[in-house]
Amino acid sequence: MQVPPSSDTLTPTEARVAESVDRDLLVQSIQRLVAVESWNGQEGPAQELMAELMTDVGLDVDLWPIDLDEVTAHPDCSWEIEREQPLGLVGTLPGTGDGRSLILNGHVDVVPPGAEELWSHPPFGGVVERGRIYGRGALDMKGPLLAGLHALRALREAGVELSGTVHLESVVAEEDGGLGTLATILRGYRADGAIVMEPTDLFVAPAQAGCLNFRIRVPGLAAHGAVRDEGVSAFEKMFGVYAAIQRLEVERNQGKEGDPLYASYAIPFPISIGTIRGGDWASSVPDHVTMEGRMGVAPGEDFDSARGELEATVSQAASEDDWLRDNPPEVEWWGGRFLPARTSPDHPIVSVIHGAASSVTGNKAPLEGVTYGADMGLIANVGSTPAVLFGAGDIRVAHRPDEYVEIEDLVTMARTLAVAAMRFCG
Amino acid sequence: MQVPPSSDTLTPTEARVAESVDRDLLVQSIQRLVAVESWNGQEGPAQELMAELMTDVGLDVDLWPIDLDEVTAHPDCSWEIEREQPLGLVGTLPGTGDGRSLILNGHVDVVPPGAEELWSHPPFGGVVERGRIYGRGALDMKGPLLAGLHALRALREAGVELSGTVHLESVVAEEDGGLGTLATILRGYRADGAIVMEPTDLFVAPAQAGCLNFRIRVPGLAAHGAVRDEGVSAFEKMFGVYAAIQRLEVERNQGKEGDPLYASYAIPFPISIGTIRGGDWASSVPDHVTMEGRMGVAPGEDFDSARGELEATVSQAASEDDWLRDNPPEVEWWGGRFLPARTSPDHPIVSVIHGAASSVTGNKAPLEGVTYGADMGLIANVGSTPAVLFGAGDIRVAHRPDEYVEIEDLVTMARTLAVAAMRFCG
Repeated sequence: MQVPPSSDTLTPTEARVAESVDRDLLVQSIQRLVAVESWNGQEGPAQELMAELMTDVGLDVDLWPIDLDEVTAHPDCSWEIEREQPLGLVGTLPGTGDGRSLILNGHVDVVPPGAEELWSHPPFGGVVERGRIYGRGALDMKGPLLAGLHALRALREAGVELSGTVHLESVVAEEDGGLGTLATILRGYRADGAIVMEPTDLFVAPAQAGCLNFRIRVPGLAAHGAVRDEGVSAFEKMFGVYAAIQRLEVERNQGKEGDPLYASYAIPFPISIGTIRGGDWASSVPDHVTMEGRMGVAPGEDFDSARGELEATVSQAASEDDWLRDNPPEVEWWGGRFLPARTSPDHPIVSVIHGAASSVTGNKAPLEGVTYGADMGLIANVGSTPAVLFGAGDIRVAHRPDEYVEIEDLVTMARTLAVAAMRFCG
Repeated sequence: MQVPPSSDTLTPTEARVAESVDRDLLVQSIQRLVAVESWNGQEGPAQELMAELMTDVGLDVDLWPIDLDEVTAHPDCSWEIEREQPLGLVGTLPGTGDGRSLILNGHVDVVPPGAEELWSHPPFGGVVERGRIYGRGALDMKGPLLAGLHALRALREAGVELSGTVHLESVVAEEDGGLGTLATILRGYRADGAIVMEPTDLFVAPAQAGCLNFRIRVPGLAAHGAVRDEGVSAFEKMFGVYAAIQRLEVERNQGKEGDPLYASYAIPFPISIGTIRGGDWASSVPDHVTMEGRMGVAPGEDFDSARGELEATVSQAASEDDWLRDNPPEVEWWGGRFLPARTSPDHPIVSVIHGAASSVTGNKAPLEGVTYGADMGLIANVGSTPAVLFGAGDIRVAHRPDEYVEIEDLVTMARTLAVAAMRFCG
């Protein structure tokens, strides 16, 4: 047996490990986990099932009640959904030597299924059809999380022992800000590198955008709609604020084309308005309208700077309007927020996963940042662990009816992770 | 005793009737009626109190359960609030001869009080302070309705008998479309002239605009806000529709300046957007937004023509947009609607009330249309009774916290109505 000169070829041991990924067991475990509903903060049963699956694979299981007082006191904690007693869970494959340690991170919480009639398959059914598994969380990210588990299972099946330790982190509350990953960091889990198994479509993503949720309330003056010119429509005043935000988005994205990790995005750091609510009565001039949205934050930018830019833009728009000058809109920052992060493409955690992906597939995996926020921000910034995003499936299928993941992609992912663990941990 | 050559002077009998309006009793009756909450379709107790007050004054009282099947089957019926068993109520002062008959019409239903903390006085307290009565409905229109009752009381107190019959109509459901007045017409109440006692600030209003409620749903395409350019924001698409509606309003009001009854209004027949609701999640591109509003309809215009103009405007705006062309907005007509109406300023019901107002106050009352819809539309169009709006108080104070009416204006109104009844009915 000999280590090949290029990482683009699998060694015989690596090939044996890759072959040990069991497609059928992987699919069955995903079907079981998808069937356990884990939205709206109800992640306990999903964590317990994950602990059982980790035990079956032979990992050392650390399942603990998260100390909510401790974690919510942390300055980087954010969340939207109240939880009574969330659970932390890490399965560890101890290393036999002093090789580099590795974290594989994935979340069990999912977004709500939405209207069931929009689904062709039951959202928690885990139906397999034409090589895909359908269900809420199949893609984001119970499928990828279990691909991580099955990578470690393949290592054990193939009898390979690693020098460095691998921690498989199964976390809660990623979708609403990352409280679960933060709790895992506070419990002490750090490593020489981390792979956050978000669905990147098997691209290697060494950068993620951050994001901030905002709420802007624009005031008006009520009047009967029959004499609407005696009032001030909050909607009409909102238009000017909206246009100013659109101009700010253009400004904030100018020059960002220079970053090769974001070169393929027309708008890498968008400012998007998601909800509008205003007025109480069809026949009244509306005296208020509230917009909620999310603001992308570039790697390297801090939250205060981003917040300041939006606030200044709204103030400036207000100062140019006779009504808003005296009745200024209010900007509020709320809900989940995600720290941006960027790891150098030269860092071993990036080059190893990139090389492993090329070796397993025979193709060079693209290297590209993502525009959404995920737990990489906490792991890199708070946990001081250089991290990369890598997982099967297209994020655009997430948070939608008929969410699905291709089984073949999950198998490729599991094989890549197993090979990457061997190369990273030694 | 001699009839004066000009109607701008009161005869001694008229002066005696005018003096018979009892300010204190009027205020007490308004306080009692304001205290009886009558919003959200709960008008029964208010009608029963009105029947008692009518009996006290010596009117022949007709209090009946409205046949909802009959009235809702009428093509001009519209309503927004479900009611179990609304009551009709008419108090009649029979004429002694064949003089012209007169209807005085007012409603007991009120709009919701809104947030109580915005009121300086309890909304159903009927507090009197500095010559004003405060409370929901004090102005719109329990105060004016009781001014009508006290006008008839003054006639009886002064021992004056009229040749023509007067019907005092106390109706429900004006605020949501006029089901109560329609039921009164269907029961057979018609006359040679009608005074609808809406608060016109003692102006004489021989014209009212109609109005239609509409709802416009604009579709978008959902996407994650982190890749917003992969979706289509329903808000951005809505802006074009909104702008087209604003242009339509300008077009519809052009040339209307020519009508002397609407010369004082910048926008006599406005199109006003009252509510906007869109999007479900701050971090998603919104795939729908819904606007609700009201469209003013000029006297002489029919509903189908007005509806057609708005629908054509929305279609035209959609045809100019790549997305909306294939995903057209939907226009829906819903809720209360009010027929427009106009009575010739030369008709006796207009000239008599106008003359009586001048006689009582010593000033010439302005003659002006109103831009809102009220029960005049049903009385004139369905009841074939020439009508005019006349009442105390400023409509701009209606539907607001701290709604109030000046007691002195109510006394002037009651005196004017009594004198007008004498001159109209003979």
